[in-house]
Amino acid sequence: MRIGFGVDFHQLVEGRDLWIGGIKIPHTKGALGHSDADVLLHAICDAMLGAACLGDIGVHFPDTSQDFKNIDSKILLKKSYDLITAEGYTVVNIDASLCLEAPKIKPYVAQMQATIAGILNLTVKDVSIKATTTEKMGFVGRAEGLVAYATILLKNI
Amino acid sequence: MRIGFGVDFHQLVEGRDLWIGGIKIPHTKGALGHSDADVLLHAICDAMLGAACLGDIGVHFPDTSQDFKNIDSKILLKKSYDLITAEGYTVVNIDASLCLEAPKIKPYVAQMQATIAGILNLTVKDVSIKATTTEKMGFVGRAEGLVAYATILLKNI
Amino acid sequence: MRIGFGVDFHQLVEGRDLWIGGIKIPHTKGALGHSDADVLLHAICDAMLGAACLGDIGVHFPDTSQDFKNIDSKILLKKSYDLITAEGYTVVNIDASLCLEAPKIKPYVAQMQATIAGILNLTVKDVSIKATTTEKMGFVGRAEGLVAYATILLKNI
Repeated sequence: MRIGFGVDFHQLVEGRDLWIGGIKIPHTKGALGHSDADVLLHAICDAMLGAACLGDIGVHFPDTSQDFKNIDSKILLKKSYDLITAEGYTVVNIDASLCLEAPKIKPYVAQMQATIAGILNLTVKDVSIKATTTEKMGFVGRAEGLVAYATILLKNI
Repeated sequence: MRIGFGVDFHQLVEGRDLWIGGIKIPHTKGALGHSDADVLLHAICDAMLGAACLGDIGVHFPDTSQDFKNIDSKILLKKSYDLITAEGYTVVNIDASLCLEAPKIKPYVAQMQATIAGILNLTVKDVSIKATTTEKMGFVGRAEGLVAYATILLKNI
Repeated sequence: MRIGFGVDFHQLVEGRDLWIGGIKIPHTKGALGHSDADVLLHAICDAMLGAACLGDIGVHFPDTSQDFKNIDSKILLKKSYDLITAEGYTVVNIDASLCLEAPKIKPYVAQMQATIAGILNLTVKDVSIKATTTEKMGFVGRAEGLVAYATILLKNI
């Protein structure tokens, strides 16, 4: 068994789509980034890579590379998964927390779980996604950005 | 074994009591919220629910419900515990971190541990509570609010 | 098996050295603190102590004590390790995340891993160190400070 942890940050700006957990969510703002800026998938990638001690998302998918420009982060999640399985690991469970002021993500959680579980060969009961505001405080509370935390357990197969 | 993670935020305002870890702490400000706004118990609830993939505290105890208005968060902790035991889980250990500028919570940690351990059928050695300031930075550093992080291991019984 | 989590914050100021992960990193600013202010080692100490339910870094190494004035945090890491081994624990793996705007820490990660692994009797594959910016947001994004998160698994020997 090995533990992993990831945290990711993105600005929220007008004129971008909002991708969270592999799902496009209708909103007045979207997340700014080199890829599709999916804060939740990035945190999960980092937790997986970290648990297997394989570096971080910036090492594998640098934002200076045109290969990853506007890329669908589900591809990065699959690549991260392939990296840990090549090391002999499989995922036990994931528990993630989104911090954002708006929109409410509850209507989309089941679809996010199914999307992530599908890529990682898990059941939806192994992919927990929670959400909270920061009670109007800080850059998240001012809706300038959003944060995702992800924790993971891996086991050696 | 399953991993869980929770994070919670509350504003600090005058005219409210300060409940942390099930204990009322003398202070010039209290935490603002729909319930008693116990940031530590909320983070632990979320970590438990997340590890068991049962949604989050907002799903089970919505702040739009009069049922939870000013409620003692120890009741929410007990309800969360009942939800995970119904799924066949028990707690291995909890490690939590409080981020707040003031007051010093060290004098209250033993009482918090005993309170939480009592509700979750644990010994006090299975409930770790740590604290740090944010070195005057951000909304925590300006004493406008406080944050709690909690991690948990569950096992299937 | 037991889980632990640590988080630490330090201001970045001129006229101080920047110690991260036991390594002195060339930079225009350094971390402010009573000790050498090594944010990563402090987070790992707290995660270790928390997993073993031994209090926190402030309990064991108070910043009011002259004993720890400007101390090398590698000494605190060794002391924390001795405390958990005295309780019968050993480290399974560590996964840590640094949040800082600058400098890039990637060139120093291998040396940090070797330093930490050496103190904790681990291989470098058991000490994961990742880094991210906060996308210009908050006190980290303004380069006023830096944050480290660390998660750990311990096992009883």
